[in-house]
Amino acid sequence: MHSLTHWPAVSDDDWNALREAARRHQQAGATWTDDARGHSIGLVFFNPSLRTRCSMELAAHQLGAHATTLTPGSGTWDFAWNDGAVMDGSEAEHVRDAFGVLSRYYDALGVRVFASLSDREQDESDALIRMVADAADGPVVNLESARYHPCQALGDATALAAHFGKEDLGGKRFVLSWAPHPKPLPRAVPHSALLMAARCGMDVTVARPDGFALDDGVMEQARTYADAQGASLTESADPDAAFSDAEVIYAKSWAGNAIYDSPGAEADQRAARGDWKITADRMARTASGAAFMHCLPVRRNVVVDDAVLDGPQSIHLPQAECRLHAQKAILEHVFA
Amino acid sequence: MHSLTHWPAVSDDDWNALREAARRHQQAGATWTDDARGHSIGLVFFNPSLRTRCSMELAAHQLGAHATTLTPGSGTWDFAWNDGAVMDGSEAEHVRDAFGVLSRYYDALGVRVFASLSDREQDESDALIRMVADAADGPVVNLESARYHPCQALGDATALAAHFGKEDLGGKRFVLSWAPHPKPLPRAVPHSALLMAARCGMDVTVARPDGFALDDGVMEQARTYADAQGASLTESADPDAAFSDAEVIYAKSWAGNAIYDSPGAEADQRAARGDWKITADRMARTASGAAFMHCLPVRRNVVVDDAVLDGPQSIHLPQAECRLHAQKAILEHVFA
Amino acid sequence: MHSLTHWPAVSDDDWNALREAARRHQQAGATWTDDARGHSIGLVFFNPSLRTRCSMELAAHQLGAHATTLTPGSGTWDFAWNDGAVMDGSEAEHVRDAFGVLSRYYDALGVRVFASLSDREQDESDALIRMVADAADGPVVNLESARYHPCQALGDATALAAHFGKEDLGGKRFVLSWAPHPKPLPRAVPHSALLMAARCGMDVTVARPDGFALDDGVMEQARTYADAQGASLTESADPDAAFSDAEVIYAKSWAGNAIYDSPGAEADQRAARGDWKITADRMARTASGAAFMHCLPVRRNVVVDDAVLDGPQSIHLPQAECRLHAQKAILEHVFA
Repeated sequence: MHSLTHWPAVSDDDWNALREAARRHQQAGATWTDDARGHSIGLVFFNPSLRTRCSMELAAHQLGAHATTLTPGSGTWDFAWNDGAVMDGSEAEHVRDAFGVLSRYYDALGVRVFASLSDREQDESDALIRMVADAADGPVVNLESARYHPCQALGDATALAAHFGKEDLGGKRFVLSWAPHPKPLPRAVPHSALLMAARCGMDVTVARPDGFALDDGVMEQARTYADAQGASLTESADPDAAFSDAEVIYAKSWAGNAIYDSPGAEADQRAARGDWKITADRMARTASGAAFMHCLPVRRNVVVDDAVLDGPQSIHLPQAECRLHAQKAILEHVFA
Repeated sequence: MHSLTHWPAVSDDDWNALREAARRHQQAGATWTDDARGHSIGLVFFNPSLRTRCSMELAAHQLGAHATTLTPGSGTWDFAWNDGAVMDGSEAEHVRDAFGVLSRYYDALGVRVFASLSDREQDESDALIRMVADAADGPVVNLESARYHPCQALGDATALAAHFGKEDLGGKRFVLSWAPHPKPLPRAVPHSALLMAARCGMDVTVARPDGFALDDGVMEQARTYADAQGASLTESADPDAAFSDAEVIYAKSWAGNAIYDSPGAEADQRAARGDWKITADRMARTASGAAFMHCLPVRRNVVVDDAVLDGPQSIHLPQAECRLHAQKAILEHVFA
Repeated sequence: MHSLTHWPAVSDDDWNALREAARRHQQAGATWTDDARGHSIGLVFFNPSLRTRCSMELAAHQLGAHATTLTPGSGTWDFAWNDGAVMDGSEAEHVRDAFGVLSRYYDALGVRVFASLSDREQDESDALIRMVADAADGPVVNLESARYHPCQALGDATALAAHFGKEDLGGKRFVLSWAPHPKPLPRAVPHSALLMAARCGMDVTVARPDGFALDDGVMEQARTYADAQGASLTESADPDAAFSDAEVIYAKSWAGNAIYDSPGAEADQRAARGDWKITADRMARTASGAAFMHCLPVRRNVVVDDAVLDGPQSIHLPQAECRLHAQKAILEHVFA
């Protein structure tokens, strides 16, 4: 049994095996292992989910495993997280006890717990999912934590292999583009897309306005991956230049760096960057056959125009479908 | 694979095959097809449900299929519906993307989306479930839309065949009776009961106060069915007369026609019709062996007196049970 | 098929058979009956749940049965309970109809409905779960009612047998200790722990402050069990004395007797008893090898100190795990 919480902790061998397995599941009629059959996973969503929940439940079922979905606060109670908490408030149970119990029922647990965007230290250390993994007496799958969303990353790599018709993505020009949004969003998805792209050997450009740099540690990890693959990693504050000749545009909004110290200033900076919306004009600068990707849910006509999403370049629906194939690879890996 | 969204679009052959299949499922020990085995259905409830959800989940399980139930806004997010929406408000995902994704996970989708009772054009055109069907890349089952509730209709036909001990319901005197209610209610159930009764060749009376006529298009469709069966379709504003010698009383409240233009007036008209409550006295006017039906949930002692519901004429519990048998027939049909 | 609603109504033979079956399920690789296979249970939670829901769903799945979980008010509607209710308010469906229908879908129902702590007569007569059992046309499992929590009791007996390494718990010194809590809590768990301990022949002490006596009828039933086993049942208002040489400390908060007539006075009395918190010092008075138990969820550092819960005496996690084994025994019993 394997855990999948801290994304960069997955070895190169495991990462490549996961990619192969997800592609195998994508191919109708393919055979797969019996590793998940008869096992159970408890899925705990502290934040909403559509794709992750449905794809994981269905993946479990189709592999002969059982999944239970829990949403704390709706049908169960709120949890306390801090060590030494004197629990005389509204939280009825400590994470240590809840996950201690759940990991005795289920063969594995999956947990979604987003970044707070208010407690920098907690978010940067991915403290909450670490507490869960610590409390659990068994494997834990990260269904999106403050810093990482490995299930998304594996689905994305699968979608790209299908799009390009080959497993080796080395040398493809991949642009992770910041996009406007009415709300400040966590960075788990852009972090994971960046690490995925670098690890797959793509030449990566992070296109983002000033004040919207990704976390230093994640950038450094991505640079290590890129160096190992002989690929490049650059940043750009000019979206038009970044899009030129790109083969993949991966759009995603995330909060600016002011979010922890000055949320009002961050909101103003974000609102001032509405011109980063992905338009058909901007997409026209990309290379022939380039793909537009988004992890969904997407704010139409704010993040990206309908003309792009409903046009021939967008692969957001097959990309979402690949989540199902990736979840199967992950479940086999966890239960192996 | 078949869709089941627009109720009158189901052919006579399909309707008769569905009725036979539901009755087969009703008979303990009966054999059935293997058409649903191994398939999956995603059930999306924009409105609450008890019978439809439970009967569909259990039907799927008992046929070897898998069902996931989703309730937008609870554990997932709210959806935008309009074409060209600029999504800078609270809706996080567009129906086009959500159902585009879900239909790539599940072999079929089921959707419940009630009438708005505020947007007449949207309700009369059944616009929302059409948008869902349009977004989905696979079959969609109507779990109650603005205009139709085909699952209920098939369950009702099954319950009537069991009640009368024969499949041919031709010539039975069926009264669809309006009833009082504290809230204005959609018309999907009365529409579907009316169409079901007419298509089964029953002589139908719609008993309802002035101002509470059903939709013209549905009445016209029902008349076409009745003519084809050589049966009658009449309306009455006198419940005592309508109940006389009836063999089936199907009680249901629905909103008056003023609901879209003058909700206050509609509420007054509705409140003035408390004497349409179904009482034991009124039921005593029916024929010997007559059945009282209601789709549930029912407001006791407002819609109908306890004495009727708990008396020997009411078949509301076996009627509800038939929902399970009908869902199995529908799943086989959808996956065939 | 058997019901399991009124806890003391379970015969001695059934109780002993349930204990044996739960222990059998606890032992990895053990064989069990096929009684639950292919059956279905509908779980209705009027109050939140973590352990009961997860353990019951997973137990059903692992035995080849199907469970559906419903939470009224979330995805379905609120129910009316009273006989003769004129349902012109917010409740959309009567319990009589809802459970009448559900018991026609599912082979058995499970229901959680807590004490009101405001209507004494309703709580003492366990009126709500009796109404459910009356409405249902099939077996009903008590998932915690106003007075009883039999699933918890069977899990607790299973955990104690495992802790002491033998099935016969006769003569063990069992202390049910009241504990502080910020909210007034129902008595179903302390009632069931008391009855379980007495029926297993343990020497029981109920340690609780003045004003916090358990229900007379339950105390009397426990005394009958104790007498039949030749065991003792005493009460103590001195926790230090009660803990001395105890072999099991079962901690639980419950509301004081003033709750129905004078909730403010009850809150004051409860708040004045913070010194009943279970500390490492107090636990040091117990016998060598003594176990600390709690049904969970537990308010850390209010009910009991971290030092106890995270120390070697606490068996709260294996105790919670035994809920899963107990549910399997209960499902087999219900479907047999």
